[in-house]
Amino acid sequence: MEKAIGVIDSGIGGLTVAHELMRQLPKEKIIYLGDTLRCPYGPRPQNEVKEFTWNMVNFLLERDIKALVIACNTATAYTLGELKQKLNIPVIGVVQPGARAAINITKSNKVGIIGTEGTINSNVYNYALKKINPNIKVHSLACPLFAPMIEQGLLSGKSSRKIVKKTMDQMHKEIDTLILGCTHYPLIKNLIQEMLGNEVTLVSSSEETAREVSTILEVTNMLNQKVELPKHEFYTTGKNDVFIKVIKDVLGFHHNLHYPITTEKAVI
Amino acid sequence: MEKAIGVIDSGIGGLTVAHELMRQLPKEKIIYLGDTLRCPYGPRPQNEVKEFTWNMVNFLLERDIKALVIACNTATAYTLGELKQKLNIPVIGVVQPGARAAINITKSNKVGIIGTEGTINSNVYNYALKKINPNIKVHSLACPLFAPMIEQGLLSGKSSRKIVKKTMDQMHKEIDTLILGCTHYPLIKNLIQEMLGNEVTLVSSSEETAREVSTILEVTNMLNQKVELPKHEFYTTGKNDVFIKVIKDVLGFHHNLHYPITTEKAVI
Repeated sequence: MEKAIGVIDSGIGGLTVAHELMRQLPKEKIIYLGDTLRCPYGPRPQNEVKEFTWNMVNFLLERDIKALVIACNTATAYTLGELKQKLNIPVIGVVQPGARAAINITKSNKVGIIGTEGTINSNVYNYALKKINPNIKVHSLACPLFAPMIEQGLLSGKSSRKIVKKTMDQMHKEIDTLILGCTHYPLIKNLIQEMLGNEVTLVSSSEETAREVSTILEVTNMLNQKVELPKHEFYTTGKNDVFIKVIKDVLGFHHNLHYPITTEKAVI
Repeated sequence: MEKAIGVIDSGIGGLTVAHELMRQLPKEKIIYLGDTLRCPYGPRPQNEVKEFTWNMVNFLLERDIKALVIACNTATAYTLGELKQKLNIPVIGVVQPGARAAINITKSNKVGIIGTEGTINSNVYNYALKKINPNIKVHSLACPLFAPMIEQGLLSGKSSRKIVKKTMDQMHKEIDTLILGCTHYPLIKNLIQEMLGNEVTLVSSSEETAREVSTILEVTNMLNQKVELPKHEFYTTGKNDVFIKVIKDVLGFHHNLHYPITTEKAVI
């Protein structure tokens, strides 16, 4: 099916999901919308996140997508159930794939979660993990500085390092698996891994979500069967300088992935 | 949904899938049928494998299962399409989850596959991988001795070691990911890893299949919501001494997993 996979996020974090979709499903077209104007969603109240998410969804539905990925943990926490119920295309959030991957990987059943305040306070990961396996012990930690820091393009360097160390020092020491419960966090994965040591396996909700989109598209016979390179479309609601920088430099779309990519400003 | 997940295999190999289902989905009941009397399926012609597989499927359908896992790569290769079309419950094979996991893991896009002659000659993994990502280079190797060796309970020791070394020496050296394309192989995973070295990541189709069963049951709202320990049922068509040995000792069901387990002889 040649229709696109729609991807929405509060800003640039969801680009890690788009990147993984393009890597794992190179034949699929992506239409991405990042609400950079109103980012971050993490500290916003539930009804506001819901409203903003619906604005984005409506923008993508006009572009006739075959599946919707909510590439934002906060938006997934607040809107997944509602969107699954109301849309007649598969809706995939980023929480459940990360939870299932962690259940697969953990040996000790002690799993850590880091995310925005919204995601952590919503308890969405505890619920997703325990729904499947009640034996999992969950250790959550809100990291309110990470997403804004990454949105500024601060992905390495002294100050980022300091913030990541100070935050990760508060994580429970006995976990063997950590879910990066915010799609921004893969962009500072190396820093987080360094602070925790190699005994802890990091689960990228971005990678795992792309993997499950692949599963669902195949099970529902919706994989694209054509072999031409897809023309991806990227939209932002605000300034897109950091956005384009992340697309080009950090995620390396230019070098390793598919072209062409169009980037446009969206009014939603 | 309190109905069971049905699992079929040519013999004991599928127990690795059952084990992973029980570990990753501890609230789900498993009904397992191993056709130990007619094992191995690997060298048998396609129409025979189809007939035997349908015998097993009919045995399980009488027990009112909510999903069917074909925990045998050979049977998946020959019957998945037909079973998906004819049954009105989700049918999950072991090939596609392993393929998707390999696509997620590989960095070099050079993926090795080992399996029975039937699985390798069917080209089912090449098809599954390239359908999703045409850039993957696939290096296949049939390992006709592995499954019969494991069915005899020979999981370590000098002769097993020799067979595994001699076989794995023939694998292409540049792969970074190897799919264990037979559900028996996780039982000799350590030996295979030793022969290939730690740079190659092994993908267990058993683990990955359990992960995808979890995905599909959630997406279709079929996860069991009750919290009591499920009473699993295990059936074999032939002698079940090795079968029970593998359940008890090797997979450690007794110690780490759920009880009770019943083991019965099945006439199919």
